[in-house]
Amino acid sequence: MQALYLADGQLQYMSDYAQPQPQANEALLRVRLAGICTTDLELLRGYVPGFHGVPGHEFVGEVVSSADKVWHGRRVVGSINIGCGDCAVCHSDGPEHCPNRRALGIHNKDGAFADYLTLPLSNLYVVPDGVADETAVFTEPLAAALRIREQALVRPTARTAVIGPGRLGLLIGQVMALGGTNVTMIGRHAASLQLPAHWGLNTAVVGTLPDNNFDLVVDATGNEAGFAEALRLVRPLGTIVLKSTYAGAANMDLSKLVVDEITVIGSRCGPFAPALRLLAQNAIDVASMIDGEYPLHDGAAAFAHAAQSGVRKVLLRP
Amino acid sequence: MQALYLADGQLQYMSDYAQPQPQANEALLRVRLAGICTTDLELLRGYVPGFHGVPGHEFVGEVVSSADKVWHGRRVVGSINIGCGDCAVCHSDGPEHCPNRRALGIHNKDGAFADYLTLPLSNLYVVPDGVADETAVFTEPLAAALRIREQALVRPTARTAVIGPGRLGLLIGQVMALGGTNVTMIGRHAASLQLPAHWGLNTAVVGTLPDNNFDLVVDATGNEAGFAEALRLVRPLGTIVLKSTYAGAANMDLSKLVVDEITVIGSRCGPFAPALRLLAQNAIDVASMIDGEYPLHDGAAAFAHAAQSGVRKVLLRP
Repeated sequence: MQALYLADGQLQYMSDYAQPQPQANEALLRVRLAGICTTDLELLRGYVPGFHGVPGHEFVGEVVSSADKVWHGRRVVGSINIGCGDCAVCHSDGPEHCPNRRALGIHNKDGAFADYLTLPLSNLYVVPDGVADETAVFTEPLAAALRIREQALVRPTARTAVIGPGRLGLLIGQVMALGGTNVTMIGRHAASLQLPAHWGLNTAVVGTLPDNNFDLVVDATGNEAGFAEALRLVRPLGTIVLKSTYAGAANMDLSKLVVDEITVIGSRCGPFAPALRLLAQNAIDVASMIDGEYPLHDGAAAFAHAAQSGVRKVLLRP
Repeated sequence: MQALYLADGQLQYMSDYAQPQPQANEALLRVRLAGICTTDLELLRGYVPGFHGVPGHEFVGEVVSSADKVWHGRRVVGSINIGCGDCAVCHSDGPEHCPNRRALGIHNKDGAFADYLTLPLSNLYVVPDGVADETAVFTEPLAAALRIREQALVRPTARTAVIGPGRLGLLIGQVMALGGTNVTMIGRHAASLQLPAHWGLNTAVVGTLPDNNFDLVVDATGNEAGFAEALRLVRPLGTIVLKSTYAGAANMDLSKLVVDEITVIGSRCGPFAPALRLLAQNAIDVASMIDGEYPLHDGAAAFAHAAQSGVRKVLLRP
C-alpha cells in the first residue's frame, strides 16, 4: 500500500509499504482523508525521539474488516491512544495515560498517512451522515480543544484569551466561546487574526494588552514565548491552560505562579463524541481553516506547505 | 523603640527606631513574640528588591491602642496583607491580591521584629486564652499551609507527598494528614525526617521513590530542584502545589505538564481563623519545631541560627 514513512527525521513516500494486519480486537480501516497537525511537524523535528513509522493521527476512514461485522462499511473517526487494557491506569483513567500506551502515528503504532490503518474497535466513532469527510477530519483536534472544558470551569463571564491562532488555537478559540464567553485571540501577526476576527472573536497582537488582563488564558503557541505571555496576561488567582507540546524545557518564573496563586493545567487529548456532536451541529467553522489538499504521493509538498507560517490545515488524501 | 532594620541586605539592631503611628483604621500592637520565616531569610538575599525597613510577619501581640476600645489589651495575631480597599480586586478577592497591597514586614510596611507594629483592625484575630504565645506565633505559617485546602481537593485517599521538611513543609505535612490522608514527607537528609516520622508520617529521601508515585505533591523546598522532584513524583492527571517562592526563574519541562495533564497550583497566604481553631484543638504539633529563642537585640545571632541547615523555627522576643 501507499504510505509516508518517517525515520531519522526524514519523511519518505513508499508505494509498497506492508499493509497492517488487524489484531483480534482491531478493525482494518481504509483512510479516506487525513490532516497534518503541528505534532506531525514536531515529529519530523524529533519531538518523540526514535519514532519511526507512519505518522498521522487525524483521519476519517471506512471499516474494511473487523471481528464484529456491524462495523463493516461504516465511516469512522478514531481516538488515538491505545492502552494496555490491563493496568490500574487503564481501569481508572482510561488509555490516555496508560504508561504502556501506544498512540496512532505518534508512538509505536503506524498512523493515518497511508492507504490503511488498524485501530481497536473501542477507539472508533461513527461519523454522522451529514458530516462531510472534510469536516470529520477535524474531530481529533476539536476533541483536544474540548478537553479544556473537561478540566477547567469555563465561566461565561470569564475574560478569556487564547494565544496562538494556529490549527489548534483557532479550534480552541471557538470552543471557549461556545458558552457565551468573551474570547480574545492573540497572535504575533495581524494577518493571522483576520479569521478569528471574522468569527466575531476579539483579537490582539502579542504584547499589546495590559498585564493581568484575563481570568483564563490558553497557551496554544507551541513555544516558550507563549507561556511567558500567558503568565503576563493572567490575573492573580487566574488559570493558564497549556496546550503546547514541544521539545525542550522552558524557563518559568515560578515565583509569579506562587505569589499570584496561578493555576496551570496541562491539557492533551479529548473526547470524540461531543466533538462529533458539535461538528454535526455546524457549531464550529472548520471549512475556513483548510489551506490545501494533496494526494499522499505529494506528502513532501503537503508537509512543506503545512510548515509555512500562517498556514492552517493541510489535508492528505490517499 | 527596639527594631531590627534591613537595608541593602544588611540587618541592623537599633534601639532608637521611631515607633510607628497607627492610621485611623489601625491598632498599635506591642509585639510579644515573633518568628523567623524562610521569607525573612530570602529578604536578606534580595527576594524583594529594594525592601528596606523592619522585617517580620509572624507574631503574637497585644493591642495597645485603637479607635475601637474593645480591642485594648487583647492578645492577637494578624494577617499580613493590607489592600488599598478601593479596587475591584479588594472588593472581589480581598487584600491578598490587591495590586497596591502592602505586606507586613515584606513590602512597604514595617513588620514584627520590633517592640511595636501597626495593622488594620480588620487584619486582627484574637488568640484564644488556652493558646500560648509560643503556639500562636505559628498562626501565619499554619494559615499558609491551610491555604492548600482552600485551593485543592485533598482526598482522604490521595497518595500525597510533601517535599521539603522545613519550617513550612512540616506544617503542610501535618495539615495534609488531617483528613486521614496518607502523607509522605520527602527530604534531602535522613536527619530532617525524624520529626515527621515521629508524627507517624511516611518519610523518604529525595530521589529514592519511583516516578509517578503520588496523586498530590506539595513542593515546599524553596528551590528549583524541589519542583523537578515534584514533577517526577506526580502521576499523570495529578496535582502539584507550589509553596516555594525564591528569586530567579526555574527550568521546567512543560511537555511533561501537557502530556501527563498535570495541574500546578501556586499557593501563598491562608486563612487565620481555621488556623487558630487547629492550634486551640492541639491538632498541630508546633512545640517540637522550635529550635531557639533570642531577645531582639540578638537578632543577628537569631538569623544566623535560623539560616543553618535543618533548623526549624527560631523566635525573637522584644
